Amino acid sequence: MKNVVIEYNKTIPAPYRDSEIVERKGKGHPDSLIDGIMEKISQTLSQAYLEEFGHILHHNVDKGQVCAGEVEVTFGGGKFLQPIYILLSGRASEGDGKRTIPVQTIALETAVNYIKEVLPNIRPGIDVIVDSKIGRGSQDLTALFNSKNEIPLANDTSFGTGYAPFSKLEQSVKAIENTLNSPSFKHNHPELGSDIKVMGARFGDNVKITVAAAFIAQHVNDRADYEDKKEKIREEAQKIAEQVFEREVEVNVNTADDEEVFLTLTGTSAEMGDDGSVGRGNRVNGLITPMRAMTLEAAAGKNPVNHVGKLYSIASFEIANRIYQETGVDVTVTLLSQIGKPINEPKLAAVDIYGSSDERTERLARSIVEEELNNITQLTYKLVKGEVSVF
Amino acid sequence: MKNVVIEYNKTIPAPYRDSEIVERKGKGHPDSLIDGIMEKISQTLSQAYLEEFGHILHHNVDKGQVCAGEVEVTFGGGKFLQPIYILLSGRASEGDGKRTIPVQTIALETAVNYIKEVLPNIRPGIDVIVDSKIGRGSQDLTALFNSKNEIPLANDTSFGTGYAPFSKLEQSVKAIENTLNSPSFKHNHPELGSDIKVMGARFGDNVKITVAAAFIAQHVNDRADYEDKKEKIREEAQKIAEQVFEREVEVNVNTADDEEVFLTLTGTSAEMGDDGSVGRGNRVNGLITPMRAMTLEAAAGKNPVNHVGKLYSIASFEIANRIYQETGVDVTVTLLSQIGKPINEPKLAAVDIYGSSDERTERLARSIVEEELNNITQLTYKLVKGEVSVF
Amino acid sequence: MKNVVIEYNKTIPAPYRDSEIVERKGKGHPDSLIDGIMEKISQTLSQAYLEEFGHILHHNVDKGQVCAGEVEVTFGGGKFLQPIYILLSGRASEGDGKRTIPVQTIALETAVNYIKEVLPNIRPGIDVIVDSKIGRGSQDLTALFNSKNEIPLANDTSFGTGYAPFSKLEQSVKAIENTLNSPSFKHNHPELGSDIKVMGARFGDNVKITVAAAFIAQHVNDRADYEDKKEKIREEAQKIAEQVFEREVEVNVNTADDEEVFLTLTGTSAEMGDDGSVGRGNRVNGLITPMRAMTLEAAAGKNPVNHVGKLYSIASFEIANRIYQETGVDVTVTLLSQIGKPINEPKLAAVDIYGSSDERTERLARSIVEEELNNITQLTYKLVKGEVSVF
Amino acid sequence: MKNVVIEYNKTIPAPYRDSEIVERKGKGHPDSLIDGIMEKISQTLSQAYLEEFGHILHHNVDKGQVCAGEVEVTFGGGKFLQPIYILLSGRASEGDGKRTIPVQTIALETAVNYIKEVLPNIRPGIDVIVDSKIGRGSQDLTALFNSKNEIPLANDTSFGTGYAPFSKLEQSVKAIENTLNSPSFKHNHPELGSDIKVMGARFGDNVKITVAAAFIAQHVNDRADYEDKKEKIREEAQKIAEQVFEREVEVNVNTADDEEVFLTLTGTSAEMGDDGSVGRGNRVNGLITPMRAMTLEAAAGKNPVNHVGKLYSIASFEIANRIYQETGVDVTVTLLSQIGKPINEPKLAAVDIYGSSDERTERLARSIVEEELNNITQLTYKLVKGEVSVF
Repeated sequence: MKNVVIEYNKTIPAPYRDSEIVERKGKGHPDSLIDGIMEKISQTLSQAYLEEFGHILHHNVDKGQVCAGEVEVTFGGGKFLQPIYILLSGRASEGDGKRTIPVQTIALETAVNYIKEVLPNIRPGIDVIVDSKIGRGSQDLTALFNSKNEIPLANDTSFGTGYAPFSKLEQSVKAIENTLNSPSFKHNHPELGSDIKVMGARFGDNVKITVAAAFIAQHVNDRADYEDKKEKIREEAQKIAEQVFEREVEVNVNTADDEEVFLTLTGTSAEMGDDGSVGRGNRVNGLITPMRAMTLEAAAGKNPVNHVGKLYSIASFEIANRIYQETGVDVTVTLLSQIGKPINEPKLAAVDIYGSSDERTERLARSIVEEELNNITQLTYKLVKGEVSVF
Repeated sequence: MKNVVIEYNKTIPAPYRDSEIVERKGKGHPDSLIDGIMEKISQTLSQAYLEEFGHILHHNVDKGQVCAGEVEVTFGGGKFLQPIYILLSGRASEGDGKRTIPVQTIALETAVNYIKEVLPNIRPGIDVIVDSKIGRGSQDLTALFNSKNEIPLANDTSFGTGYAPFSKLEQSVKAIENTLNSPSFKHNHPELGSDIKVMGARFGDNVKITVAAAFIAQHVNDRADYEDKKEKIREEAQKIAEQVFEREVEVNVNTADDEEVFLTLTGTSAEMGDDGSVGRGNRVNGLITPMRAMTLEAAAGKNPVNHVGKLYSIASFEIANRIYQETGVDVTVTLLSQIGKPINEPKLAAVDIYGSSDERTERLARSIVEEELNNITQLTYKLVKGEVSVF
Repeated sequence: MKNVVIEYNKTIPAPYRDSEIVERKGKGHPDSLIDGIMEKISQTLSQAYLEEFGHILHHNVDKGQVCAGEVEVTFGGGKFLQPIYILLSGRASEGDGKRTIPVQTIALETAVNYIKEVLPNIRPGIDVIVDSKIGRGSQDLTALFNSKNEIPLANDTSFGTGYAPFSKLEQSVKAIENTLNSPSFKHNHPELGSDIKVMGARFGDNVKITVAAAFIAQHVNDRADYEDKKEKIREEAQKIAEQVFEREVEVNVNTADDEEVFLTLTGTSAEMGDDGSVGRGNRVNGLITPMRAMTLEAAAGKNPVNHVGKLYSIASFEIANRIYQETGVDVTVTLLSQIGKPINEPKLAAVDIYGSSDERTERLARSIVEEELNNITQLTYKLVKGEVSVF
Repeated sequence: MKNVVIEYNKTIPAPYRDSEIVERKGKGHPDSLIDGIMEKISQTLSQAYLEEFGHILHHNVDKGQVCAGEVEVTFGGGKFLQPIYILLSGRASEGDGKRTIPVQTIALETAVNYIKEVLPNIRPGIDVIVDSKIGRGSQDLTALFNSKNEIPLANDTSFGTGYAPFSKLEQSVKAIENTLNSPSFKHNHPELGSDIKVMGARFGDNVKITVAAAFIAQHVNDRADYEDKKEKIREEAQKIAEQVFEREVEVNVNTADDEEVFLTLTGTSAEMGDDGSVGRGNRVNGLITPMRAMTLEAAAGKNPVNHVGKLYSIASFEIANRIYQETGVDVTVTLLSQIGKPINEPKLAAVDIYGSSDERTERLARSIVEEELNNITQLTYKLVKGEVSVF
C-alpha cells in the first residue's frame, strides 16, 4: 500500500482565482529548442543503451546552452553574421568497460537532426555550431543502474506536482501554439517560424492573449505583406481561443511591433540576441503557470529510469488527469520521493481535491494513484520512445 | 494610486501545511556558483556603465553554464584530470557608439575574482577555464534605457511573488548554510568546501534536515578523520536547527556516504560530474520552496533597471516582510507587470493575507505597497552595490 | 627596369645531387586539409569583397588548426567517438563601415563545403565541428588596400624562391598523388581515402617511393581484401613512377602495416590522432623538397593582393618555369620584396642558372622576369578564381 | 660505423653570397610564444612521465594556435576588449593503463606559467584564455616507446640540417634579440615588450638591421617619450651590431611608425590582430635563414625521444658547431633518418665542407659525427631539462 493522503482545498485552482497568467514557449523558442535537443539526446542515448546493453545506462544530459547568433535581416531575406552556438552538457555513461556506445556522435547527430526538424531553414555547421562537453558519468551514480529487473531506486529526494483539468486559458494557450506550429499550418504559412510564444492573462472575465511569433524574412515581401500575414495568424489564434472560451477573446500578435517587426532568417530569435537554457521554459505539461504549483525541475535530458524529479513531474499530471476524467473533480497531485527507495514507493502521494469530501471519489483517487505508481516503469519506455512531451 | 488588491487565504503558508520541503544550494554548488558569477557580472557592468555613461546600459547576462571537470581525489589530496569549463553568455551593450566599456574583460575578470573568492583552492586558468560568449545587445532593447531621470518601463509582462515570514524549517535551512559557509566557520574548518546543500523536510511535526557538504581532501587525513570532522559539522548544523525550532531536530550530513565519501579538491562537486546553470537553483529569497508559490524567473545576471521579473521577485519579498513586521500577519505578495509601463505602476499588486479580514492591517498593507513601489528604483542601486542577494 | 641579377651555379639542383628526398601530403592529409580550407576561404572572401566593394579588402586567414577526432574502426565500418575539431583563425575585414560582408558565415560555409568535397564520407556538424575565431583586421593594415587602380604595395620585407624543372623524383611523387586523388581513379577505387602521403627518396640511382594511403573501412571487407586493394594501388603508383623514370622503380604502399592497417572511416588520419596546421605541409609547388631552397612562408589563406610572401613564392616558380621552357636551363629564381614598395618592383630578382654563362639565355631570362613582374597583379585574379594551387 | 659522407662545396654559406636575409622572432612574438608554450609542455610532460613511469611516454604536442585578442591602447595604458585565445593541441599518453598523469592539468599549468614569464603584464584567465584539445596518443605509436634501455627507433623517415659558423648578420640578429629580451635590459627598460622581431639584410657590404619592438603603453607617456625610448633601444641594438661587424651598421627600430606607433598593453602583438602557430617561426638555431638550407620541421612540442625531425635538426647544428670549432671550416651537416631504425644510426650523415679537400679535417669531422651520434640519447635529457632551445 502506498502512502496516499487525500486533502481538500489546499490549493485553489487557477480558474477559480481572480487572475491567471499562462505562457507557452513554442518549440523554436531558444529555451524550448535546447529542452527539445537534450530530451531527444536522452531518448537516442537510451535507445542505444537498450540495443547494446539490454538496459539503459546512467545519464543526465539536462544541461545545455544556446548562445545567440547575429544576423542582418530585411524583408525578403538576409544573412548570418555570427552563427548560433549550442553547447551540449551533462553526463552520460560510455558503456560498461567492455562495450561502448559513441556518446558524442549520438549527441551531435541527434542535436543536428532535431535542429533541422525545428528550424528547416538553418544550415547546421554554418548557421549554427553545435559542440559537446557531455562528460562521463561518475562511477557511483552508474552503480544505481546495475540491477536489471528490479524497480529502480529514486536518485534523489525530490518532488513532482501536477493538476487537472486545464483552465480555458491554459487550453487556449497550448492549443494556439500547437496549431500554429503544426506541419499542416506551416505548410500553408511558410512565413511563420517555430519560435512562437503565447501568453495568456485573465483578470476576472477579461481575457487577453498575446502571441509573439517569429516571421521568416524570405517569405515576407514588405511591411504590408507582413501586416497581412500577421493578421491571418492573429485570426487563426483568435478562432482557437474563442472555440475554447465559447465567447469573444482579445488576441494580439507581435504587439511590440509599432516600429520594429519580428523578422528572422530561420524562425527563431536565437539567431539574434536571445539565448536559451535547459529548464528555463515550459514545465512538463507544456506550460508556465505562475499561479499554479510548479517545480523548478528541468525534466528535459534527465534519465527516464530513476530520476524522480522527471518521472514524478510527469506522473503527477497523468494521475491528476485520470482522477479528473474518472471523477470530474479539480485535483492537484503531489508525489514526494525518498532517495534510495524504489520509485514506485514514494514517501508521500498527496491528492488535493477542490470541493467537498466524497468517499467514492476518494476511493477512486486512491486506486488510480496505486495503479499508476505500480506502472510507473512503463513511463520510462514511453519517454524513450518519445511518446511523452516534457516541455 | 496603485492597483492594490487585498485577498484572504488564497494561499496556505507552508508552516500550516502537513508537509513542507525546503532546499538551499550553498554558494559553491554548481548552480549557485554560476548564479553568483552572472549576478556579480551584472553588478560590475552596471558600475562601469554608471561611471562611463552616468546611467546603466542594457544588459541581461542571465545565462551561463558550468561544465564539470574531472578529478582524481583521495584523503590528503588529488589532482585535476580535466578542468571545469565555464561559459558566460547573455547580452550586454558595449557602449553608446562613442565610448565603450570592455564588456568581455569586465565579465572575465569578475568571474575569475568571484571564483577565487568562493573556491579559494582553485587555480583559475588551470583548474577552471572561463570563456565568454556574451554578445552585444540588440538595438531596440538598448533604446528602452535611453531616458535618464524617468521611471524605467517594464521590459516584459512578468510576475514576482514573495511571502513572509519564513517558516522554522526555512529559517533553519538558510541559517545552516549561511553559518557553515561563513568566513569565521571556514576559518576554523578549512576542511569544509563551499558546496553545501541543505535540505529540510517536515511531515507533521517530524523534521529532518540533511546536509550534503563537500569536504576538501587536503584537510582530511583518512576515513576516521573524515567521520570526525563530519560529526563536528553535523553538531553545528543541529545546534542551529534546534535554536530555531527550540526542540530536538534530526540532522544528518552526507548520508549517502555509506561507501563513498564526499571528498573534493576544491570544495565543489563541479570539479567532478556536476554541471550548473543559471536559474536552476535558489530563488531570490535564497531557498527552493516547492510548497510555496515560486516563479521560474532566473534573477541572477538580469539588468537591475527594468527587468521586472527580477525586480518584482525581490520587491515582493521586501513588501511581504515589511507587512509581516508591521502587522504580524502571514502574507503572500504578488506583483504583476505590464510591458512598456513604468515599473512603479504594476498592473496588479495582490496581497494575500492568511487569517481573517482586518481593516487596519489592510490599510497598513496598502500603504506599504504604495511606498515600496514608489521607491522601487532604489532597489536598482542596492542591487548594483551588491547589497541584495538574489540566490 | 627591375633590379635583376643573373648568377651561376649558386645552387646545385636536386637531380645533380647524390641524394634527394621529396614529399607530398595529399589533399586529405590534415596539414593539406587546413591549407585547402583556408586558401578556399581567402578565395571566397575575395570574391565577396569584389562583388560588394569592387576591390579586395584586407585579410590574412592563414592560420587554422585541425584537432584530431577519435574513431573506432574495423573492416566494413566503424564510428566516431569524438568529432574532429577545426578552428579557423586569422583576420578579415568586415567591410568599409558602410557595407559589410558576413565574414564568419562565408568562412564557415566555405569550410564545410570544402570538407565535404575532400572527405565525402564525413558529416559536417556531427563528425567534424568547424568553429571560427577569424577576427577583424586592424585599422592600419586595412589602409594599405585603399588605393584601387595602383599597383599594391608590398606588405612586408619578404622572399620567394622557385625553380625549374622538376626532378624525375619530384615529378613522380606529384603525379602519383594527383592520379590517386583524381575523381576518375576514386570512382573506380572508392576504398581509397584522400589522405595520401607520397615520399620519394633517391640515393645515387637507387629510387624508392613510399605511399601512405588511408583506406575507407566501409569499402574493405577484410584483411585479404585490404591486401588486394593495396596491391592495386601500389601497381598504379609504380606504373606512374616508371613512366617518369623510364625504368624500374621500387614503390611500397603502407609499409608500416605489418600488424596494423591504415583503415579509416573518412579517408583522413585527422579522424584519429593526427592534427594539422596551416603552413606545415607542401610548399606552393605542391611538394616538400628539403634538398631545394624553400621558404617557410605559409601561402594558404594569405591575401592575394599585397602579401609578397605568397605572391613571390608563386611568381618565382612561374618565372623559373618560363625560363626553363624557353631556354632549357635548370634555374632557381629568388624574389625579394621591400615593404611599402610596389609589388612589381622587388628589391632584387636573382636568377641562378645552373651551367655555363650564355648571353642569349641571360637576355631571355631578364625579359621574362620583367614581363612576369609587370603582370604580377594578374596573379591576384588567378588566385581568386582558384586557378593556382598553393599547396 | 655510421654512413658518413664528406662532400665539398655543395652549399655556398650565406656569408659568401651576394645577399643575405636573416630574421629572428623574439620570445613574445605570437609564433615564438606558442612554440615556447608547446616545447615547455613537452618538457614538463616528459619530467612527469620520468617521475611516474621511469621513462618518457609517447607524446607530440607540436600543434597550437594563438588567436589574437583585441585591445584599446593609448600612451599610458589601455584595456583588453577581447582576450587572446590559445588552443593547445597534439597528442600525449595519459599513462600505461594502471597509473596516469594529469596531461591536461600539466599542459594548462605549464602554459599559464610560461605566459606569465614571457608576458608579465598579462592576466591569465582574463586577458588570455588557454584551452586544451590535447588528445590521447593512438595505441600503435605508444608501442614505439615500450623498450626502456635500448636506443629508440626513428619515428619517421626524416631529415635535419645545420651549419656553422653563424654569419656576422646572423650573430647580430640573434644577439640583438637576446640582449633586448634579457632580464637585465628589461629591468632598465620596462617599456620594452617581449615581442621583438629583428630582421637583417645584407646586399654586398650594405647591411641594414630592422627591429620591430612592441612598447608597453603603461611605461610610455606620450609620443615624445616614445621616440626617446625608441632611440635608446635603437642605440643599444646598433651597438651590438657594430660590435659584431666591427664597423658602422644601419639599425632602425619600428620603421613603419611614421603615423602609427607599436604600442601594446602586454608587449605582444598577439593582443591585437596577430595570430601565431607552432612551427611558423624560428628554426632550432633561433633564426629564419632563407638563404640557408632549412627544414620545415616544427621542433617545438615534439617528443625528445624518437622524433628524428626534432633530434636531427638539433644534432646537425651541434655537429656542425663542433666541426667548425675543431677545424675552422665552414660546414653544413645533414642527417637523414630511416623509420624504424635506431636513432643513432641514420641512413646518411652528409658533411658538406666549404673549401678544399683536407684529410685531417675529414678524419676529425667523421669522428665528431660518430661521437655525437653515439651520444644522441643524451640530447633527449638536455631537452627535458630545458637546456636546449628549439626556437
